[in-house]
Amino acid sequence: MAEQEKEAALPKKENFSEWYNDLLQKGEIMDVRYPVKGLYVWYPFGFNIRRNTYNIMRELLDKDHQETLFPLLIPENEFMKEAEHIKGFEDEVYWVTHGGTSPLDVKLALRPTSETAIYPMYKLWVRSHADLPLKLYQIVNTFRYETKHTRPLIRLREITSFKEAHTVHATWDEAAAQVDEAIRIYTEFYRRLAIPVLPSRRPDWDKFPGADYTIATDALMPDGKTLQVGTAHHLGANFAKTFDITYEDVNGEQVYAHQTCYGVSERSVAALISIHGDDKGLVIPPEIAPVQVVIIPIIFKESSDVLQACESVKNKLEAAGIRVKVDASEDRPGAKYYKWEMKGVPVRLELGPRDLKNNAAMLVRRDTGEKRQVSLENISDEVLSLFGAVQTSLYEKAKQEVEERIFDCSTHDEIRQKITQGIAKVFWCGKKECGLKLEDEIGAGILGIPTGQEPCKGKCITCGTDADMQVYVARTY
Amino acid sequence: MAEQEKEAALPKKENFSEWYNDLLQKGEIMDVRYPVKGLYVWYPFGFNIRRNTYNIMRELLDKDHQETLFPLLIPENEFMKEAEHIKGFEDEVYWVTHGGTSPLDVKLALRPTSETAIYPMYKLWVRSHADLPLKLYQIVNTFRYETKHTRPLIRLREITSFKEAHTVHATWDEAAAQVDEAIRIYTEFYRRLAIPVLPSRRPDWDKFPGADYTIATDALMPDGKTLQVGTAHHLGANFAKTFDITYEDVNGEQVYAHQTCYGVSERSVAALISIHGDDKGLVIPPEIAPVQVVIIPIIFKESSDVLQACESVKNKLEAAGIRVKVDASEDRPGAKYYKWEMKGVPVRLELGPRDLKNNAAMLVRRDTGEKRQVSLENISDEVLSLFGAVQTSLYEKAKQEVEERIFDCSTHDEIRQKITQGIAKVFWCGKKECGLKLEDEIGAGILGIPTGQEPCKGKCITCGTDADMQVYVARTY
Repeated sequence: MAEQEKEAALPKKENFSEWYNDLLQKGEIMDVRYPVKGLYVWYPFGFNIRRNTYNIMRELLDKDHQETLFPLLIPENEFMKEAEHIKGFEDEVYWVTHGGTSPLDVKLALRPTSETAIYPMYKLWVRSHADLPLKLYQIVNTFRYETKHTRPLIRLREITSFKEAHTVHATWDEAAAQVDEAIRIYTEFYRRLAIPVLPSRRPDWDKFPGADYTIATDALMPDGKTLQVGTAHHLGANFAKTFDITYEDVNGEQVYAHQTCYGVSERSVAALISIHGDDKGLVIPPEIAPVQVVIIPIIFKESSDVLQACESVKNKLEAAGIRVKVDASEDRPGAKYYKWEMKGVPVRLELGPRDLKNNAAMLVRRDTGEKRQVSLENISDEVLSLFGAVQTSLYEKAKQEVEERIFDCSTHDEIRQKITQGIAKVFWCGKKECGLKLEDEIGAGILGIPTGQEPCKGKCITCGTDADMQVYVARTY
Repeated sequence: MAEQEKEAALPKKENFSEWYNDLLQKGEIMDVRYPVKGLYVWYPFGFNIRRNTYNIMRELLDKDHQETLFPLLIPENEFMKEAEHIKGFEDEVYWVTHGGTSPLDVKLALRPTSETAIYPMYKLWVRSHADLPLKLYQIVNTFRYETKHTRPLIRLREITSFKEAHTVHATWDEAAAQVDEAIRIYTEFYRRLAIPVLPSRRPDWDKFPGADYTIATDALMPDGKTLQVGTAHHLGANFAKTFDITYEDVNGEQVYAHQTCYGVSERSVAALISIHGDDKGLVIPPEIAPVQVVIIPIIFKESSDVLQACESVKNKLEAAGIRVKVDASEDRPGAKYYKWEMKGVPVRLELGPRDLKNNAAMLVRRDTGEKRQVSLENISDEVLSLFGAVQTSLYEKAKQEVEERIFDCSTHDEIRQKITQGIAKVFWCGKKECGLKLEDEIGAGILGIPTGQEPCKGKCITCGTDADMQVYVARTY
């Protein structure tokens, strides 16, 4: 990209939508100029963030899941088997109808999600109670023919990075425990991204098509809307009955299995960028950052000593497993600061002749802007311990932000006002008509019942009868 | 799977086709029962092999390439831009024509390869000579509507694991050097899989549609056919002209860029399995093996000591970074041997009460079957050094096999006879009609001119005129 484009200022973060779109380009996350609506291109820098993010997911899942890979194309007859499920997806499915110039005998769906690709195989794989639990996952591209406004990483026609897990269990209760475990894993995953998430049980009208119930995790975006960044579905024996997934129990009887599925997409990256970024650009948690430390030589005249010192610091840091770049380009230091701040590099080290004499460097934190002189003596330990501090600080800041933006509300007016800033928490009697009426009147959605809610008593915000739970209400992406 | 199925013997490897198909299932590489022709399911065990294999590819490319990700769907107008390219692919392309129940305005192709998805973006990304060289790659699913007989990992309708690199250079010569570099990288990659490959320059009628020339690497399969397991294409400025990819050179002129692309697919896994496997099942090189060491406790009566010792050996090995499994199941030792031999685990350790007394174990190599007593004192070093020996031995064995199966031939009859066992090497004058006539008469293909061929003189096998090069001729997959 031309220099002048790069150096144009980012919109202020308070103008979230413009800031987000511009940051995707200037931070080299996604290029939105691909010639099909709703499809975007990962810049190598953005993809590197994606790789580090999904490596954390793999690390967490590999403890007791196995990775696998199923086909993208699902034949129409399999896809059409589960009635509820189709109803949920039929308007959104891309259909392959031709191979070369010939029409296909059976139309093929591009998976919008993989239940109907995977479960015919589970029928073959699950035989006996000894095969259970079965816990598999895959990271794949999935497709939704979105008619709503599309948005990079958030609402896509090709979801490029769908991590979907599909588990099979002997009993309904074991499947329920797995749903809880999925939410625990997702909470931990987002913790590693320094993102606090709010798990809640979705109201029935918002559950996954074909599921008994859905628990989802939401992140609070800077504009006060919530972004659903993970879902876990208890499928009961619904799909097992449709796809005939049975196992021989300890008594030798063939009984239906119980299933769950749970997914996370590149919305995880959207949340990461949006929540931590600031007016200067990206702020990437150290574990995720493609470049963790950038070293800027401060050179007033020809000074090979300084460059040599920078390389030597780089080697030290790399030996400690840190991802480092020396920016020895001919740009002015200010232009370099701008560039690497935009890319969210957690730590900048500035090293000039005077620093060299003191065996020191100027260390600048990306997240707080804090500057201080550090000795080069134990620079690796210094940087590694700072990484820990940055991670904690990013998470605590985001957590405080969420806590400050959850509002107890007891009137519709109050909700309408507060949900421009965040999440309203209101009493609800649990009746569907009250819930739908509320959603209709305030023009926002019930996220759901927070998991692990303490017992509480109040009056339903809609009908005024006794209510023993509170629900989150928010504007959603 | 039921026990009796698992225990049925594998066909002999000399019946390669049956052996291969059966091994995919028994070795838990691919399940072929997915209900669409040409689409298969990776078993978790197979996918683990795939993961380790592609991690090596990433390691090699990441040195000076960057990973990225482009959309699957290519709009018809972009796809149709490069005339030669379309001719090569138009019969094989899957078309998405509908989103939900509505016909799409513009048909979308499932990428058969990504030139036409990537190069419109390269037009935007490449501005100046300072942007060059640009070296990106992605690992994606691609699609070919194969009308020929499909075969798991080898001839697929969904290629699940296509690693494609796309580079841009200032000059034709720099692009040519990159093609050589690609072949060097692939040769190293296959070396890590203990597979010797033969690079050759494809005859013009067999080059990539739209390329100036193609160099490919072939592996020799056990049945004497060759499998193309990597290709590198010099695209000249052909696509640059079509997609208007220009850069400002040092003189300020806009000139066309030069490009290459090169790819490897899951055929790498097909070659791995086929070349190293034997009558007992898979033989996986240590670096790739999902399980590198299996420990079998030999227990005659209740013996927690032995189990404890197995766990302690496991911990030792894991501390050295080795992937280990203790098989403490209730199967007979013989059944365990069968199972883990089928899965190609490089090293088995058997540990019984007597071994325990001697602080020793019986070590069995999967590739040679060699057994010997080893002390548990330095077991990690012992095993790691054995891994090196196994790797070398697998490669040397495969290399010898290839060398013994390349035959200098000087008559058509001789070729016909020899290509049932391997590769014929014949003189060719280089004229297309002689080449095509040869292919026609023997019913096999000219692979190409081996790269780095020493100067040589002979008579063309077809027309008898002077020829200064030899070419490989083989039956191909």
